[in-house]
Order: sequence, then C-alpha cells, then structure tokens
Amino acid sequence: MSARIIDGKAFAATIREKVAQHVARLSDAHGITPGLAVVLVGEDPASEVYVASKHKQTVEAGMRSFEHKLPADTSEADLFALIDRLNADPEVHGILCQFPVPDHLDERAIVARIDPAKDVDGLSVTNAGLLAAGEKGLVSCTPLGCLMLLRDELPDMTGLEAVVIGRSNLFGKPMAQLLLRENCTVTIAHSRTRDLPGTVRRADIVVAAVGRAEMVKADWVKPGATVIDVGITRIPHPDKPGKTKLLGDVDFEAVREVAGAITPVPGGVGPMTIACLLANTVTACCRAHGLAEPEGLTA
Amino acid sequence: MSARIIDGKAFAATIREKVAQHVARLSDAHGITPGLAVVLVGEDPASEVYVASKHKQTVEAGMRSFEHKLPADTSEADLFALIDRLNADPEVHGILCQFPVPDHLDERAIVARIDPAKDVDGLSVTNAGLLAAGEKGLVSCTPLGCLMLLRDELPDMTGLEAVVIGRSNLFGKPMAQLLLRENCTVTIAHSRTRDLPGTVRRADIVVAAVGRAEMVKADWVKPGATVIDVGITRIPHPDKPGKTKLLGDVDFEAVREVAGAITPVPGGVGPMTIACLLANTVTACCRAHGLAEPEGLTA
Repeated sequence: MSARIIDGKAFAATIREKVAQHVARLSDAHGITPGLAVVLVGEDPASEVYVASKHKQTVEAGMRSFEHKLPADTSEADLFALIDRLNADPEVHGILCQFPVPDHLDERAIVARIDPAKDVDGLSVTNAGLLAAGEKGLVSCTPLGCLMLLRDELPDMTGLEAVVIGRSNLFGKPMAQLLLRENCTVTIAHSRTRDLPGTVRRADIVVAAVGRAEMVKADWVKPGATVIDVGITRIPHPDKPGKTKLLGDVDFEAVREVAGAITPVPGGVGPMTIACLLANTVTACCRAHGLAEPEGLTA
Repeated sequence: MSARIIDGKAFAATIREKVAQHVARLSDAHGITPGLAVVLVGEDPASEVYVASKHKQTVEAGMRSFEHKLPADTSEADLFALIDRLNADPEVHGILCQFPVPDHLDERAIVARIDPAKDVDGLSVTNAGLLAAGEKGLVSCTPLGCLMLLRDELPDMTGLEAVVIGRSNLFGKPMAQLLLRENCTVTIAHSRTRDLPGTVRRADIVVAAVGRAEMVKADWVKPGATVIDVGITRIPHPDKPGKTKLLGDVDFEAVREVAGAITPVPGGVGPMTIACLLANTVTACCRAHGLAEPEGLTA
C-alpha cells in the first residue's frame, strides 16, 4: 500500500490562513497589527530570495514587515544598535536576523542580543531553556512546522515510538522535546548510533534531519510509520543538464511504498517554516499585549 | 554472574577529594576561596539536615559556607533582596535555595532570581538552555553525579543505547542531554511509554528516575547493562518495627543478577549530589575569575 503524501505546501497555506484570520481579529478587536522585522547583512543571493519571500508572506497575512538591509561590512556595534532599537520598538513583535551573516559577525551573539520574547526564530538559549523546562517560549520554526504536520496526521501521539535522526541544537534536540511533550517515547539517533536501520525500524514516527540524501531506506521503515523528511540536499538534475534537484534524507520513492504517511522534498516540511515564523510573530504579539494566544499556531 | 556494585559513597569521596585539591590550588596560586551560599526558608526538619550536611562538606573541602536561615514567613521581597546581595557578593560563587519553600513563595521565581553563573543547582531556564544548546553552563547536581558514575564505569559511551526512565525537567531531560553529549543513542521513556519493559531491555545504560519502588524488574534488563537507580522511596522497614527503609526504582536484589554494574539505594547516586554541588561551586568560582576549570568535575 502506498503512503499518504503529506502536502506541506497546502497545509502551510491553511496555517497562513489561520494567521491571517487571527491578525484580522487583533486588528478589529484591539487595533493591533503584528509586526515582523527581518535584518539582512550583506548580499547573499539565496538569503535575499528568502527574505523577499518572508516579506511577501508577512504582508499577505496582514502583518507589518520591516526590512533592514545592511551592508556586508556592518560592524557588530551598528548591528547591535539596530537590534536594540527593534527590541524597544512596540510595533515590532518578532525579530530575525537572516543567517548566514558575514564572517566578522558572531551568530550566537546576534541571537543573544534579540529580546527572547521577540526571538521568533526560537534560536536563543533562553527559548531553548524554556522549551526544555516545559515553559512557554518561542519554538524554532522548522521543528514547530514538523509538529504541526504530525499533529494533523496523528491527533494523539501518546505512547508512539518516535525516532529523531540528527541531534542538532537547531532541529533535532528541540524536535525531541516537542515529541516528548506529545507523550511519545522519544529516541534521538545520530551519526554515532550503532544500528541506525534497526533503531529507525522500531519507530511509529520517523523524523530525519541529517542532510544525507536518501539515507533512510525502505527496509529501515516500519510498515505504516509516519515519516517526516527535514533533509535538503541539492544535486545536479539527472535528466536536465544544468539544472538541480532537491533530495531529502529519505529514499522517497521506495519508502512511500512502506510508510503510512510521508512528506515529500520539496513540498513537505519546507513550506511550513515561513508559515511558522508568521505564527510565532502573532504569538509574540499576543503575549506582548497580554492577549490570548492563537489556537493551533503554537507548540 | 552478579553485577559490580557501584559504590557511590566511595566515589563521591574521591570527587570531594578532587574538589578539595582544586580548592587548595586556587588558594595557593591565586588567593581565592570558593564560597557557597545556602538559603533556607522555614524549619523543615529534612531540609535542616540536608543544609547541615552541605555546610559540613563545603567546609571540609576548604571552601567558605554562607548559611542564611530565614523565618517561614519571609516575604518574596526580602528573599529576593538577599539573593540580590548574594548575586553581587564577589566572595559567593554559588547560591542555592533549599527547596521546598513555604507555599507563599514561588520556586521558579526564586531560581530565576539567582544569577545563572551562580546557579550551582543548575535549575534555571538559562542553564537548561545552555545545556540544550551545547554551551557551557552549570549542570544540575543529580544528573551530573550520574554522568560521573557512568564515565567512571564506561569510559567510552559512544554508540551505546541509553534509556532514561522519567522525563522530569529536574532530572530526566538534562540526563538525556548529557548522555547525548557522550554519543549515546538516547531514549526517553516515561509513564506513557507503551512497552516499558521492552524499551528498557534494549538499553546498555538504564537510568531510572520515576520514584516507583522496585519497578524495574530483572527481566527488563539486558544482561551486562549498567543500571543507575535515581529513585528513592521510603517504606516502613519490613523487619524493624517503627523504622523505615529506602528503596530505589530498581528491584536491586534481582537485577544485580543480570546487570553488569548497578548502583544501590542508598549509597549509589545519593551521595554524589552534594559532591557535585561542591564541584559546581568550584567550577563557578574558576569561571568568575577567568581561570581554567577543574578537570573531571564538570559535564
């Protein structure tokens, strides 16, 4: 039996629609418009595309978008001065600095400078700590997106075996915390795991985030399992010279014959990330104003 | 074959000895004496015993011990004023408030008030976040003690399957983070885990922290596994009327016939906790002075 293909693009659209509805309610009832500030240092072309996409989706959701493009040689002091102004600006509810930044800037220090209550990328030590402590914070967008897809697929994850492949601070560790909150039995596997196929095979939920193209094979996957593929590897397109193709961490064509449900790459987890960024901005705005948080948009 | 019994009492003594040596070096080379401040609110008899024990071991290690006993009706404002003074005091490198505190005080708020660099109990959101982010912080004493026992038993844990039973913020979650750092494949199991015996059976390392007496049975344990028992349940003594007896989460007498190594209760993990508190205080002191951290006393 072939797996259900989880349509992340369509699901992300429903999240953006929920965000837009909540934004409209905030405006109507309280005269408040959530605002997202994006800081871009330098002229990385991929980052420019990504920032433009964030801007477009922010505006489409009815929110304010504040773009700050700084030259590549911006000093840390000038960048921090901007972040401090954004931290203090009551019209700005979310702040993110697009990474990578030029080498003379320290990404950790930048994240640490952003007010944790406005850290809508959920990257700060404080937000990692709030997640670990089971308290309210802002959850990093990609794991939050995976959680939303999983909740839609599996309304009750209690007691399910979840295996997260990859233990990065940005994804694997927060993803494991989120699955634990859903009452899964959670295993974190990684490059040093002795029997990765055997470990993955026991999972009802597999979340793969290692960045090795098509690593997860069909015989690694328990029949009926839900497979979330976070990996993205760009390869030369096999049929179209000069073009490239995106591959996930999962051998999609083979695994879809075994899994119960699976996210494709592209069109699975990817589109959820910006949608979750918008969701986090609305959440941060509601908290800043002491208002009820939007339902279905937070961890 | 019967398991090696891990003597936590003896091992804690070696940790305290290492602490004392490092304290002597700090004094000789730099004229610095690490200081630990313990705040006790109210007159809980068990807490008084525990605070006295901390005081004694702190002094025996050559460190300064500052005891602050406050009446049970101390206001939050007065308690916070004391914490603020201790935060600012350069002779105080570690601060802990003995829990439980009277009901009118909020334990989370107290922990949040302590400077994270002096939070030698490792309970703050900041220290949880630093652990999750793989950065340097202060690690909670009981998981740190378990880690030290495990490192002594298994110098290389790479690729071993570790199962932590219990997902508390105070123990299970930080313990899982520490085992992940040691390159274990880590599973967090808990009350909602469907097949707890089967989950535990696959572990090379079992760390049990649920507080259910003798829950982990012999047929749950893989032959040769290392078993760390963090649970403590006090029951009426079966043979001595009017006396009590401590039981761990592991059915010790049966499991010792299967495991490769096992901690007893009492005398296993318990004695490590205060030793790790002293170790954290020395670590905090070294960091406060920009000096090299003691080897073998940190995570």
